[in-house]
Order: sequence, then structure tokens, then C-alpha cells
Amino acid sequence: MANIALVYYSGYGHTAKLAKAVEEGALSVENTVVHVLRIDDEGQLPDGAWKRLADADAVIYGSPTYMGGPAWQFKRFADTSSRPWQDLAWKDKLAAGFTNSGALNGDKFSTLTYLFTLSQQHGQIWIGTGLPAANYKRNGPNDLNWTGGFSGAMAISPVDASPEEAPRKGDLDTARHLGKRVAQFAGRIAL
Amino acid sequence: MANIALVYYSGYGHTAKLAKAVEEGALSVENTVVHVLRIDDEGQLPDGAWKRLADADAVIYGSPTYMGGPAWQFKRFADTSSRPWQDLAWKDKLAAGFTNSGALNGDKFSTLTYLFTLSQQHGQIWIGTGLPAANYKRNGPNDLNWTGGFSGAMAISPVDASPEEAPRKGDLDTARHLGKRVAQFAGRIAL
Amino acid sequence: MANIALVYYSGYGHTAKLAKAVEEGALSVENTVVHVLRIDDEGQLPDGAWKRLADADAVIYGSPTYMGGPAWQFKRFADTSSRPWQDLAWKDKLAAGFTNSGALNGDKFSTLTYLFTLSQQHGQIWIGTGLPAANYKRNGPNDLNWTGGFSGAMAISPVDASPEEAPRKGDLDTARHLGKRVAQFAGRIAL
Amino acid sequence: MANIALVYYSGYGHTAKLAKAVEEGALSVENTVVHVLRIDDEGQLPDGAWKRLADADAVIYGSPTYMGGPAWQFKRFADTSSRPWQDLAWKDKLAAGFTNSGALNGDKFSTLTYLFTLSQQHGQIWIGTGLPAANYKRNGPNDLNWTGGFSGAMAISPVDASPEEAPRKGDLDTARHLGKRVAQFAGRIAL
Repeated sequence: MANIALVYYSGYGHTAKLAKAVEEGALSVENTVVHVLRIDDEGQLPDGAWKRLADADAVIYGSPTYMGGPAWQFKRFADTSSRPWQDLAWKDKLAAGFTNSGALNGDKFSTLTYLFTLSQQHGQIWIGTGLPAANYKRNGPNDLNWTGGFSGAMAISPVDASPEEAPRKGDLDTARHLGKRVAQFAGRIAL
Repeated sequence: MANIALVYYSGYGHTAKLAKAVEEGALSVENTVVHVLRIDDEGQLPDGAWKRLADADAVIYGSPTYMGGPAWQFKRFADTSSRPWQDLAWKDKLAAGFTNSGALNGDKFSTLTYLFTLSQQHGQIWIGTGLPAANYKRNGPNDLNWTGGFSGAMAISPVDASPEEAPRKGDLDTARHLGKRVAQFAGRIAL
Repeated sequence: MANIALVYYSGYGHTAKLAKAVEEGALSVENTVVHVLRIDDEGQLPDGAWKRLADADAVIYGSPTYMGGPAWQFKRFADTSSRPWQDLAWKDKLAAGFTNSGALNGDKFSTLTYLFTLSQQHGQIWIGTGLPAANYKRNGPNDLNWTGGFSGAMAISPVDASPEEAPRKGDLDTARHLGKRVAQFAGRIAL
Repeated sequence: MANIALVYYSGYGHTAKLAKAVEEGALSVENTVVHVLRIDDEGQLPDGAWKRLADADAVIYGSPTYMGGPAWQFKRFADTSSRPWQDLAWKDKLAAGFTNSGALNGDKFSTLTYLFTLSQQHGQIWIGTGLPAANYKRNGPNDLNWTGGFSGAMAISPVDASPEEAPRKGDLDTARHLGKRVAQFAGRIAL
């Protein structure tokens, strides 16, 4: 059985939609439980969340990319995680990440690299998409990993697109794929 | 004349000491004005700070490295700077950065890379220490750039050292050097 | 007068096309000289190139993104630049960078961050695109900075697109813009 | 049983010494085989190395930090690994990394981040040191992780120190610890 904590912040709903796809992907693997922990606008977790995180086999981190990095609300959560970090209480958990922003690139790589860096502070084991990019002329926003992320799932939401419109099919499929991949490996690592 | 805004967060006083050294270095250059803007524990700037930032020729960013990146309070300031960013109102200002953490490395590079990434969102021009590292066997914490930062000033404060004890002479000299360097170049770029 | 060295590697011609656009942009500024220095397949510079680099006011670095970073031929050039680096002979030059790869993201940010890191070893002053991203639903590959790079010019060339087909108009315009921007600022810094 | 490929470049012998410590650490775990593959000065692997890499459960990457990133010889190996990458033939292997340079920081983080980025192109699963830093006033070069790396093992070799003198005990212990950790987890992931 894989016990996954999915902790994320979403400002306008696009990253929440991505988180939903990650969750669906994870739940497509048998015997998987996903605890969805949404960080609020002040950077606080819901009640009971720290216990869920402590008990999880795997943690999936998600944040929009704002001003070249994760949202401050996510960073506040990360800084508060210095408490379990002091005893390396989250060591050896599997970890993964996802992000969304308006532009094709738009420094999404910076956010994913930060999520990885956070995981390494905690002594965690990082898993990415394990996907090639859809990088042929024929490819477009409906294709798996058209956006082209490797260390995590990346999504594009144009700034005038509602959460109904974006992220689009390819990005959601990539997020679903990542969730499934985490669930598959979480059981192997947590002996 | 160089008009510099020095915006930083400090949790326990070590980064504040580093900021003081940066300020001293800048003020050692004739006709330089430095506006010191300390972010508070809620991530807010003092009154009038946004005007100071708008008017500055150069902006120097500083934050401790917490959990592998800038403190959330600094990131909150960065996210709030999306307002001037929307009109690229800070474009073409000179920019620089500094950070402090407990370990020798301790992901300080990650924080400086974020500060650089923020500056590039704003269309700014980045200047680093311009220093070699003090990397001989004879070198130690009293030497300029013993810590070995290039893109910005890095400092080490062991976790049981008070702000009176750390950062030490070499790191403070490096910070002073960076402040001076920013002041020297700020005038050249701001025609 | 601005004296610019443009040093780049290109494996299949796409990055060379991007370099040409950077050059055109720089030459659109009066009193600018651009020395184009193409690294060969063994990572060597043409005759006289090190002298051109030594004399330049600004250096623009370019490489495709291969396996998540700059091509090894570019890195060989970078490692060989440890000779001028030992005396910080390239200090205070303006620096900028560009990259191309097949996927939308495809770790282009990693390559640009490396080019920046190299510049900071050399004590240089980094300038990016200074552009917002074209991140509305209506935008596409013909638009300036649709690809969404800030620290440098990014380009997308699908893996089955010839250099005649890609990079496309928007990426070439972004590269042109970056070249122009470097030429405009090179004169200000080199007093 | 864990089958590990340890692929590294060393220019002057310091990184080779670090590699030896990683190997020792791995071999301290029962039923572990380590294939040591040293990249030569032209960036080529020894005969049979690609087969060893293909068969491995885990790959450990090592390079000195030169000019802010991995040595070009290592990058040449990385670029050549685009052949197995095209079929994602190294997917799901465990991966880890180490680096050495003269200064305390000296952009070691940049090299480790590149090694991680390479692993993510290959769809691998990354494991770091899982160690806290030795960041008290009493700590020094004999202490485990005094250098303070989390995503991989970092070592300091002052530029006038021979490979007999550096890296020092603490860094070698950290490398040993990383090798052991990789061997312990390689068996779990490779079902």
C-alpha cells in the first residue's frame, strides 16, 4: 500500500486543477491512499496535515511559479517544515513535484529545482516524470509532456485562461502520469 | 550619484549584520545614498519602501537561506513586487544579492540563484562579487571570500553562533566589497 | 563604441541561426562591432579568438541544450577560459546568453543558468532579455518571447525541423532584441 | 544484490580519491557489485563501460567543479549518453552524485544540480546524502558533512593541496556514507 501526501498551493485554481490530475493518477494504482493538503492564502496547512505528512510514504509538492519561484505561501510551508527536518523525520520518503505558470518556460524549471532542493534538505528520494518530451512539429498542447518537463510535471496556463481552459489535456495527462508513477514506486521504497 | 535600495530579511540578526556591511561598502563610494528596507516577520516592507525601490538605480536583495532557498518573508516581498513587474518598472536597474546560512554550503547557491532569477524577471542587470575565492590551505574565515561565492556574497553563521560572533570578518569584508562594487557601477548604468 | 564577442556552439545549425539573429540585433546599434566566434566540433575556437575575447566590452555566450545543459564543446571552451579567469582578465565585461532545444522547456533554463554561473566566475555583469513573456491565449510562435525566457534568449526547434524551419520568428526576434540590448548597454559599462 | 556503476572524471586525483570513498561505502553493503568507470582526459569511457551502465541498478555520477559546472570531459560522457536516453534505457535506475572543488562553496551546488538534471533526463530516481550538516562552531573538516551538501556529496580540496592532503576526513566519510546509502536503496527500487 502507498500512502501519499499531496501538499500544494494554488492562487487562482490552475495549480489546483493540476493537483487533481496528480491525485487521479495516484489513485489509479491499487491500494493507494492520497491525502490532499491544500495550503491556504496565509501559507497554513489544514488541521491534521502535519500528521498526514509524517505518516506518508511519499510527498508530492506543488506550487504555481510566481516571480521565478514557488509562491510565498508554499515557501512558508517549506520553512515551517524545518520542525520535522530537525530530526530528519521525513527522511527516505519518496518525493516529486509539479508547477504551473503563464508562459511556456516562465522559470518553471526554477520552481521544480527548488522543490527538489527542499526534498534533499529532508533527505528524500526524488522521482520525476520519466517521460520523453513531445518535441516534434506535429505535437501540441494535447500531447503528453509537450511542455517538456523531466524533473517534475510542468503546466502552461495563459494568463487570460480560466481554470476550465488551462492547464490543457497534455499537461493534465503528464500530471496524471506523475501521480501514477509516484504511487507505483512509493511501495517499493517504503519497506 | 548612486541611489541604492537595500531590501532584506533577517530572522535572527546574522543577515542583518551582513546587510550592514553591504551598506557600509556602498557608502564608502562618494555620492551614494543607501535606503535600507528591512522586511518584517510577516513579509511586509516599511512605509515608503515601494517608492524608494521605484526611485533606486540599484537594488540589493538579501535573505537567509532557509530550507534550501530564501526565507518566505523575502519571497512574499518578491511576489508582491509583481505589481511594479507588470509594467517592468524596475527594468534596467542594477541588482545584486547576499545570503547567510549555518553550513559551509548549505544551499546558499540556491538562494543566490533565486535572487538572480527574480532580478531577471524584473529585467535587471546583475553584478556579483567579481572576486576570486580564498582557496589555499592557509586561508580561513578572516579572508575575503573564503566562503567562495561569485554570483553574490555568501556568509556562514554556525547555528550556535550569535550575531556578535558570525558572520566573521572574511564574510563581512566580502559583503562590504559587494556593496562598494554595486555603488561604483550603479552610476555607470543609470545614465 | 561597443565591441562584442559572440561565442557559441551549434550542432545542427539551429543555434547558429539564433546566433545570426543576435548578431543582427547587436549590429542594429550604431558603432557596434561583433566578432563571431564559432566553437568547432572538438570544442576549439578559431584562430585569434582569445584575443577578440580579451578585447571585448561584452561577451555573448550561446549553446544548444543537450542532456540538460550546454553542449560539451561549449563546456570545453568554458573550462579553457580558466586561463584568463586566473587573472580575472574578463572581469567587468557585460555578459549575456542564449540557447535552443527541441522541447518547449527541455531544461533550457538549466543551460542559461550555467552561462550566468560561468559569467559570475569571470566577474562579469549579466544582462537578460528585459522582456515580458507573450503569455496570452492569442500568442504563438511568431510572437516576441512566446518561449518565455528572462535571463537570456530561449528558442524551440522541434527535433524534425530543419534550421530553415526553426527557430521561428518569435524566437529570432527575441534573439535580435537581446543582441540589441547588449550593444546598447556595453557602451555604458565600459567607461 | 545491488549492481552499481560509478562513472566519474578526475583531473588531478582529488575527485578520484572521493570516488574511491564512494566505492568503499557501497561495498560495505553485502551483495553489492561496483563497476568503477573512469572517464579519460578526452571524455571517453573504458571498454565495456556502456554495457556496465546498461546493466546497473544504480548510477553514481562524479566530476570536479570546473568554471562553475562539471568538467567538459564529464559533459562529453553525458552528451554521449543521449544514445541510451533515446530509448530511456536508463529509466528507473537509482542515481546519485558527488563533486570536488577548491573553495568552500565554489559553485559545487551548480554541478550537483546538473548531475541531478542529467538523471531526470534519463528518468532516474535521485538519492542524496540524507545527512544534516555539521554546522556548529565546534565542527571542522574532520566531521561528517561539514561541507554541507544535501543533494550529493561535496568535497573541498584547497588548490595547493595534493590528493594525499585533500579531500579531508569529513568529506571522505560523507562520500562513503553516500556510497553505502545508494547500495542500500538500489536493491529496493530494482525489483
